[in-house]
Amino acid sequence: MSTNPTAAVLVIGNEVLSGRTADANINILARRLGEVGITLAECRVVKDIAEHIITALNALRTQYTYVFTTGGIGPTHDDITMASVAKAFGVAIERNLQVEGKLREYAGSRLTNATLRMADYPAGARVVWHGEGYAPGCIMENVVIMAGQPRIMQVMLEAALPLLKQGQPVHARQVDAWIYESAIAEGLEAVQSRFPNLDIGSYPYRIEGRAGTALVARGTHLADVEEAFAAINKLLDDLGAERRAA
Amino acid sequence: MSTNPTAAVLVIGNEVLSGRTADANINILARRLGEVGITLAECRVVKDIAEHIITALNALRTQYTYVFTTGGIGPTHDDITMASVAKAFGVAIERNLQVEGKLREYAGSRLTNATLRMADYPAGARVVWHGEGYAPGCIMENVVIMAGQPRIMQVMLEAALPLLKQGQPVHARQVDAWIYESAIAEGLEAVQSRFPNLDIGSYPYRIEGRAGTALVARGTHLADVEEAFAAINKLLDDLGAERRAA
Repeated sequence: MSTNPTAAVLVIGNEVLSGRTADANINILARRLGEVGITLAECRVVKDIAEHIITALNALRTQYTYVFTTGGIGPTHDDITMASVAKAFGVAIERNLQVEGKLREYAGSRLTNATLRMADYPAGARVVWHGEGYAPGCIMENVVIMAGQPRIMQVMLEAALPLLKQGQPVHARQVDAWIYESAIAEGLEAVQSRFPNLDIGSYPYRIEGRAGTALVARGTHLADVEEAFAAINKLLDDLGAERRAA
Repeated sequence: MSTNPTAAVLVIGNEVLSGRTADANINILARRLGEVGITLAECRVVKDIAEHIITALNALRTQYTYVFTTGGIGPTHDDITMASVAKAFGVAIERNLQVEGKLREYAGSRLTNATLRMADYPAGARVVWHGEGYAPGCIMENVVIMAGQPRIMQVMLEAALPLLKQGQPVHARQVDAWIYESAIAEGLEAVQSRFPNLDIGSYPYRIEGRAGTALVARGTHLADVEEAFAAINKLLDDLGAERRAA
């Protein structure tokens, strides 16, 4: 997977840290980025505090090919993502007149100064049009800025993906067996050693008191994934492990 | 909330970054820590790579009162949390004989070398017994090390909480109204200015095409929360906003 572009997700939102909202975007992004061959390497969740956003963003954007931010781009006082990204890059905030026009059209008599804040972007950012009736996200150098609401985030993500470098999609094969994780741990380590470019994972669980483990081989090279998966199944056969229908 | 102990959550697990698993622990921890007056200030998700774990842990443990880690404490090759925490603190890994005894008792004839890895802790860590039939988590200075499975994580968390400093519980009041967020943004900012110690949040949504916003006042000082909540309701009354039954 080492040649794929890498990414970090930066979730901006007090509501996730207070527990009011369970973040759904990390999982959506993890799956979708895997499909297009962008390797998600790290996530952070920070409060709506400019200094925290800037520190995290500057750490991540220099370390990974892309950073995807979610949250903090609405019309209210705590929506400070655009201003914080601008500060992180040392640029001003500029009103985008095309977006302003669309917002005026969309809001009509409901228009307020707060609505118009959603037309403000870091200078130099590329607005990513998506064809729906609310302000678009943007790409500032290698930072993709999106909304916090998962439905809107996904619209913005799909609009941004064609503009990004993509890599080899990730393939995964999984088998579930009624087996203790510790029984297969040693054999699994040997499989991991044979395939250093794959992620070999094991995820134990209990169903009605019975111990099971999900075993996963994951990577960008399909033939290796298939071969490692065969090796895992061989281990399970040797242990006489009953498979669980997933 | 400034006098409450602070915390970060460090989620350790390729499975969250690959999208295989949707993390549930951040939300569970956010809510529970709020109840006992520990302010969750940041979360990170990192891969099962020692260097990544150590870097994140050293950044977080020096910045917050507590760090809660989840994941990577099982019997397999990718369970490297205990070893990584030991390296972050510059101490060795030691087998805990009491835990080893319990694991031998519990595993019986299923015992493997992999099972016994779960009795290894950073030297100086306090094992946190929880009375259930699997290896306990531990506390290493200000770092609380727990499992990734949410059910087991919660058992370990409840065992650890009485050993930690706690603060003022967080109170929250929420009202939902059929109103555009931009219509109330300006008024809400004034409420936030009056109550700098509270988090005043607004969370827009759409239900069958109709725009609504959830408005939340949150903080440790109940009287302030109530007063800010009354101010928010006054704003809604002034705007003639119809409430939505939550």
